[in-house]
Amino acid sequence: MIKKEAIDSIIEDYKPKDIKIATLCSHCALQVFHGARSEGIKTIGICTPERKKIYDAFALAKPDEYILIDDPKNLLSSGIDDELIGKNAILVPHGSLVEYGGEEIENFKAPILGNRKSLVWERDRIKMFEWMREARIQTPRLLRPEEIDRPCIVKFSGAKGGRGYIAVNSPEEFERKVNKKEGVIIQEYLAGVRFYPHFFYTPLSREGYRAGEGSVELIGIDRRYESNVDEIYRPLSTGMDIKPSFTVVGNEPVVVRESLLNEIFEIGKNVIEAAERLFGGIPGPFCVETVCDENLQFYAFEISSRIVAGTNLYPEGSHYTVYNYPEWMSMGRRIAREIRIAIAKEKLHKIVY
Amino acid sequence: MIKKEAIDSIIEDYKPKDIKIATLCSHCALQVFHGARSEGIKTIGICTPERKKIYDAFALAKPDEYILIDDPKNLLSSGIDDELIGKNAILVPHGSLVEYGGEEIENFKAPILGNRKSLVWERDRIKMFEWMREARIQTPRLLRPEEIDRPCIVKFSGAKGGRGYIAVNSPEEFERKVNKKEGVIIQEYLAGVRFYPHFFYTPLSREGYRAGEGSVELIGIDRRYESNVDEIYRPLSTGMDIKPSFTVVGNEPVVVRESLLNEIFEIGKNVIEAAERLFGGIPGPFCVETVCDENLQFYAFEISSRIVAGTNLYPEGSHYTVYNYPEWMSMGRRIAREIRIAIAKEKLHKIVY
Amino acid sequence: MIKKEAIDSIIEDYKPKDIKIATLCSHCALQVFHGARSEGIKTIGICTPERKKIYDAFALAKPDEYILIDDPKNLLSSGIDDELIGKNAILVPHGSLVEYGGEEIENFKAPILGNRKSLVWERDRIKMFEWMREARIQTPRLLRPEEIDRPCIVKFSGAKGGRGYIAVNSPEEFERKVNKKEGVIIQEYLAGVRFYPHFFYTPLSREGYRAGEGSVELIGIDRRYESNVDEIYRPLSTGMDIKPSFTVVGNEPVVVRESLLNEIFEIGKNVIEAAERLFGGIPGPFCVETVCDENLQFYAFEISSRIVAGTNLYPEGSHYTVYNYPEWMSMGRRIAREIRIAIAKEKLHKIVY
Repeated sequence: MIKKEAIDSIIEDYKPKDIKIATLCSHCALQVFHGARSEGIKTIGICTPERKKIYDAFALAKPDEYILIDDPKNLLSSGIDDELIGKNAILVPHGSLVEYGGEEIENFKAPILGNRKSLVWERDRIKMFEWMREARIQTPRLLRPEEIDRPCIVKFSGAKGGRGYIAVNSPEEFERKVNKKEGVIIQEYLAGVRFYPHFFYTPLSREGYRAGEGSVELIGIDRRYESNVDEIYRPLSTGMDIKPSFTVVGNEPVVVRESLLNEIFEIGKNVIEAAERLFGGIPGPFCVETVCDENLQFYAFEISSRIVAGTNLYPEGSHYTVYNYPEWMSMGRRIAREIRIAIAKEKLHKIVY
Repeated sequence: MIKKEAIDSIIEDYKPKDIKIATLCSHCALQVFHGARSEGIKTIGICTPERKKIYDAFALAKPDEYILIDDPKNLLSSGIDDELIGKNAILVPHGSLVEYGGEEIENFKAPILGNRKSLVWERDRIKMFEWMREARIQTPRLLRPEEIDRPCIVKFSGAKGGRGYIAVNSPEEFERKVNKKEGVIIQEYLAGVRFYPHFFYTPLSREGYRAGEGSVELIGIDRRYESNVDEIYRPLSTGMDIKPSFTVVGNEPVVVRESLLNEIFEIGKNVIEAAERLFGGIPGPFCVETVCDENLQFYAFEISSRIVAGTNLYPEGSHYTVYNYPEWMSMGRRIAREIRIAIAKEKLHKIVY
Repeated sequence: MIKKEAIDSIIEDYKPKDIKIATLCSHCALQVFHGARSEGIKTIGICTPERKKIYDAFALAKPDEYILIDDPKNLLSSGIDDELIGKNAILVPHGSLVEYGGEEIENFKAPILGNRKSLVWERDRIKMFEWMREARIQTPRLLRPEEIDRPCIVKFSGAKGGRGYIAVNSPEEFERKVNKKEGVIIQEYLAGVRFYPHFFYTPLSREGYRAGEGSVELIGIDRRYESNVDEIYRPLSTGMDIKPSFTVVGNEPVVVRESLLNEIFEIGKNVIEAAERLFGGIPGPFCVETVCDENLQFYAFEISSRIVAGTNLYPEGSHYTVYNYPEWMSMGRRIAREIRIAIAKEKLHKIVY
């Protein structure tokens, strides 16, 4: 992995007044560009030619300039880092970028918002559970194949938006259904309902809910909408031999019972402080994927250590940001605001790697 | 059907500064009136006496004046067209108006926003599938009664908000459950989750996503909330002998995975261009009712060639309009804005029939 | 119960320019404080020490001052009423406050927004059904244990946010599952989908939809999100021996089919007028918990005669308030606005007890 000092020295050479925000045109890029624009920061869209017209269709969310690429799979291996450095740009990572970028993100030479080490911890599901345990968060049990004695979900490495998850109830079913057995985790299925809180951790301020050396904000909460499982109840389905699938196709807004905000903030804080102990922290946006059971207990089953697509529900602020900001505040805008603050305080090195 | 030239000559006689927007007080009328008011256009509510107090209860969304009618079923056969012409009014059609108006809408003498031919294509489910095929959109299979070998939904002509749809699994079940067999379509049930994107097609501008001679905007997306099927999973239901029903009773907000916007825009564009080839186009609002399966494939099962009630979720703009307009933009306001632009450009004949 | 005259004489001594809004830091307190702030009214948070940091984390929704308490269960029995009187405060009751306060709320000496008698009617489920019958609203049938011949829900007294509800199908199941049989009601389960309309009744104005001596406003509608029942359909669940539970953990936004607003407003109006006949009325916020079946019939199964947590979805206004107010209007703000209006009109005694 490229050294933190190397990134720090690059960012030190950036012209403060000319810093730009770049991301891959997918996932939550409209929101990131729109938020940056409202904070007066110029944007760069890394984009395939056929997607360009989608972004051009949104007058207030299209990037100020494009870097056209042939295939997002070459995203991080095609000299784009040099190009971004030449443009004074900070790359904002999101789910598609992490997925397409793969391991090459580790040696990407341009500054990335947040701590790129966290993307390694996110991608490796074993490490992710280690992180959640370090944070003392309740999690579903992980089982070995021969231990499967209850409904479980088999998950593969990487953020593929839920595609390819497999449901199994027994060791035999695991053997039959799961072809590629390396790197998978087998996770106990927990009954309850899902909440995906979107956090922003700033090491630059002690206002708000204190966590680590800074504080954590709750930017919003969503519920993912997965095909086909989230409409599998529609009764005609029962007559069909449908294999449940968990492809995330959208998001729905939700608010949580106010007395549970305690637990939500504590989860955010603990994930931050565990990250500081394990690999140096996670400045910027992240999400902890949880299930809340009928006893009001939260179980985390995943951490996304970067902006999640559920934030697309709140391009003008959420049920929670309204209590903190007099103007609208999306996660995209919050990122741009943080960069602005860091520039002003000469602390960009605290929020990028 | 009344000739386009007849409508054009009526609209030519309208006083541009005094044009009004009229609709039936139901479905999405609050939003249409509220949107028109924000664009400075006066409104007329066609209303039964008992509904009037509902609309009067909303200070900023009640119409500027009412035309009281005894029974919405006589809506289009009671000289209201002459009255609207006398008032310089353009009628905005919606689901209730199409349902109550029936075939008489074809000869209604007042200008109707959009192309009234599209309402004929919408009402006839056979023609609607022809339209979708012309647009090269994937659709569920249509079956003949003797072909029913999988779960199917039997649908009747007309926009009744989902009432009366019948689920069948076999030819025998079709015989037993479906009394009136003429004009029905039998449609394969597709597993997946539903998205209802709300489009606006303007022939007056090439900004935005190009389609036909103009461009198409994404105004919002909803998910319909149907009774009783959308809570049939609540487990007590399983103990009851409940017949699934599909009556639309409300709507819920949703955003789509950003990488799917490509497909969504292409569906909108293709529906527009097919409409131009088949019957002269569809200026104004429309919706394509879709299912997205676990392979991220969209299937369309219906087109509503006018404003849909799901737009009521976004009376101050949506997750998508915020990326296009600096002020709030609802579908009701977008309609009024289009009328204003058409007046200014002297192109009203391009957006009414 | 403390006499209305006693409260009236206390409120008469309040300094009009210094009136404050107090509530327990839970349930919907952020929204209540945020709304009060926007109307220029100071706030008091009654709070346990460990919750304080949650409220402090929201710069625009934290109370102006705190009253710290050890245990919310002592909320109403620890001299807080005298403290609130000393501070010119009106207490806004919500679900947690009603739950923790118990019967002691009846003799609480400080003024409470609304009519405290309604909280007694809300807490006693037999009285609540009497109220709904007096309002001529359709309700699910109540059964005696030996009559259970269909799926039923067994409910206990008090607002515990759905915790502990039990599903039964037969007298035997009731015997087996329900330990504490006193004070429970057994309620027929109705198929349909849920709508929770949030009403505000003002006796101070005849604008809007007339009800009683004043008028009723629709502030929003939500759908509760209950664990685990609202995700029990996810198919892995079917392999597990899951007992359905109904703990409310959050809320989701929804709009209703516009033609149903008629029924919704009539339900609100009838509940208000029945309350006036039965116990003197219900100024302020309330909610009628309903199910809408496939024939578009509403059945009410509960009344909450105070602000409900579903209003937390709309801290900047809803799909309905936008049609009534040029500025954003939450239920919290509507409460504060009503207090401001009552102060100006010298009619505080009409809205507190």
